[in-house]
Amino acid sequence: MTRDACLALDAADALAPLRAQFELPPGLVYLDGNSLGALPKSVAARLHSVVSEEWGRDLIQSWNTAGWLELPRRVGDKVARLVGAGEGEVVVADSTSVNLFKVLSAASRLARADHPERRVLVSERSNFPTDLYIAEGLCRDLGWELVLLEPDELPGRLGPDVAVLMLTHVNYRTGRMHDLAALTAQAHAAGALTVWDLAHSAGAVPVELGRADADFAVGCGYKFLNGGPGAPAFVWANPRHSDRFWQPLSGWMGHAAPFAFTPDYRPAPGIARYLCGTPPVLSLAALECGVDSVLAAEPVGGMGALREKSLALTTLFARLVEERCAGSGLELVSPRDAAQRGSQVCLSHRAEGESGGYAIVQALIARGVIGDFRAGDIPSSDILRFGFTPLYTRFVDAWDAVEHLREVMSRGEWREPRFHRRSAVT
Amino acid sequence: MTRDACLALDAADALAPLRAQFELPPGLVYLDGNSLGALPKSVAARLHSVVSEEWGRDLIQSWNTAGWLELPRRVGDKVARLVGAGEGEVVVADSTSVNLFKVLSAASRLARADHPERRVLVSERSNFPTDLYIAEGLCRDLGWELVLLEPDELPGRLGPDVAVLMLTHVNYRTGRMHDLAALTAQAHAAGALTVWDLAHSAGAVPVELGRADADFAVGCGYKFLNGGPGAPAFVWANPRHSDRFWQPLSGWMGHAAPFAFTPDYRPAPGIARYLCGTPPVLSLAALECGVDSVLAAEPVGGMGALREKSLALTTLFARLVEERCAGSGLELVSPRDAAQRGSQVCLSHRAEGESGGYAIVQALIARGVIGDFRAGDIPSSDILRFGFTPLYTRFVDAWDAVEHLREVMSRGEWREPRFHRRSAVT
Repeated sequence: MTRDACLALDAADALAPLRAQFELPPGLVYLDGNSLGALPKSVAARLHSVVSEEWGRDLIQSWNTAGWLELPRRVGDKVARLVGAGEGEVVVADSTSVNLFKVLSAASRLARADHPERRVLVSERSNFPTDLYIAEGLCRDLGWELVLLEPDELPGRLGPDVAVLMLTHVNYRTGRMHDLAALTAQAHAAGALTVWDLAHSAGAVPVELGRADADFAVGCGYKFLNGGPGAPAFVWANPRHSDRFWQPLSGWMGHAAPFAFTPDYRPAPGIARYLCGTPPVLSLAALECGVDSVLAAEPVGGMGALREKSLALTTLFARLVEERCAGSGLELVSPRDAAQRGSQVCLSHRAEGESGGYAIVQALIARGVIGDFRAGDIPSSDILRFGFTPLYTRFVDAWDAVEHLREVMSRGEWREPRFHRRSAVT
Repeated sequence: MTRDACLALDAADALAPLRAQFELPPGLVYLDGNSLGALPKSVAARLHSVVSEEWGRDLIQSWNTAGWLELPRRVGDKVARLVGAGEGEVVVADSTSVNLFKVLSAASRLARADHPERRVLVSERSNFPTDLYIAEGLCRDLGWELVLLEPDELPGRLGPDVAVLMLTHVNYRTGRMHDLAALTAQAHAAGALTVWDLAHSAGAVPVELGRADADFAVGCGYKFLNGGPGAPAFVWANPRHSDRFWQPLSGWMGHAAPFAFTPDYRPAPGIARYLCGTPPVLSLAALECGVDSVLAAEPVGGMGALREKSLALTTLFARLVEERCAGSGLELVSPRDAAQRGSQVCLSHRAEGESGGYAIVQALIARGVIGDFRAGDIPSSDILRFGFTPLYTRFVDAWDAVEHLREVMSRGEWREPRFHRRSAVT
């Protein structure tokens, strides 16, 4: 493999023109779209219109005339196309954490009604912490037990006491991807409900919520959906559950008739009951641009083609690291098996007994290669993360990133004290 | 009173120059800032910078370099100055509905710990519905009773069974304002906690949360704070409570060390534990512009001066309606007593046995006078609302609005069928 061979791959890539949708600083190799997606060029004009015309000129009337009230459903329908859900099954609202609270609350109500003897919520030990925090609080209130396991231990623990299996489809640290369909089937066979966090999946890997007959799902708008910092999140409930219970964040936007201003809560039919307060229109408008940037892949193969390119990129990057940075103490943490890999490559680093992960990432950033670092409970679990967004990441970016990494390691650049100063977010 | 006299009032008004902060369509009389505040001119440039530079150019690094992570606290500290709270006591996050869920959950935990025998939540029958919906859901989960009363019945009901008194300071329909300090003192004397919704107060009337020693408060960013459609809301907890319990939306941003990624939830000290998910940066940036537009009144008297002008405007408007629209079937619903009036004037209408409220508002909108309409449970409780934002509403606006109203009524314009067609939001 050579840099020219990578350029040839880009030249032959049917998805390559999609990169022109994004503002990307010249010379930067951005491998952090798994944390914050790049800026779609359409956002500036859209926000200008929302601010100047819809808010500034038309003011309150825009709730009707500009369709503000429909945004959570309209953008939800677009997200649905990316996660294998049907029209009217997804809404965009609040944050992933808040939506997880809603669906876990709904799932626990279903479980208590149908199987009151089940009082265990099973999840993965290295799940994203906010998921565990929300589950921890709910379990305390419910008197349930939260059981945290390693991925391979999950199927064996799905016994008659398990009410809910809550998992993040693609692990934020390792990039390891669960088999959503298989685990859903195993949970159902054991009588448990499933709650999936698609934060690192939506827009990154194909998801078939409906085909898998999963129960609930939430996901993030600002990673592979390119919705902007802190973009609203999405929530899905299997239609067979959505009318049965509602969630305790029973705000007026989830009411069957919000503008009737009736004193009693009457949940809207279907997924709309997972709405709560007034939608943040500016952030939602930007998110719609982001979701549209992913849907733009539909004419050239959609999520299937994106997945194929994503795997080609991550396979190439991992192979180049192992070949060109051999002996540097870097090791592949992400699964070698493509079926178990999301759209990121994670490395760990050990040299002379210590992890240089943080400093290596900082040295790369100084060279214009943006990845990120996630500290672990123990030093050896420190992770260097490199996200690959097939919409805008090129094969030559993978090559260039590894070349910079090779130089950072071979020149000992990462040992420089300036790369060891910690900032709040890394 | 004449139009010229109103122009003279505007010429003598020390707050008049603050109007230049806003984009307001020429010729429009905007009396709906109690529903959606006008657009501060600073928003366009701020959002352009956040989008193009912070998101587009600096990408993930802006969490550190652009202070995104600090936004909820920084804007919260600014809001604190408007509601009589201290630095570090307010954060901006989520929606009013979600924040109400947080503080009601925290209040109920305090009540259950200190007074388990108290199992009643008291509120006002005509409170904003989302507040009642959230309370209804929580009471059901807690096995508590939700007691809804008329304003005058409240003090008499604060008995030994009451755990929490939850009120909206200024009623969204009538504009009637509770005496926050007196009701808080009465509730405390009866052993109950207080939760205040400041949706129609923050930026509109002086609020002294600290001086009143209230317990919890939430409020809205998109009304008198001019933060834009669906702007994030704010939340305050009395520092004496904030470290004692936390709320069940225990997301990672409310963790003591969000980026340590520890599996166990450990709430941040103080109000930061009322944060949950990743903050919506675009909407927060616009909100900061809005809050700044209110703080710009500080050199010319701040909330005291704004209140004085607000009362002068609402008194003038009410008086002009009664004088110039006499016999039209319009009646003042808002309190005549200034001490009981927020920053809006509400009217009802009856003519030949029916309410023309909706159509009158539509006829006014067609003439460029923007108020709004709120339907009641019974037709006679239909309300025409006119909000007065002293930052940008002029005395001549009050005059012109009433002149249009007079013509709508005297010419029977409101009877035209085109003004009776309903849209989703009115």
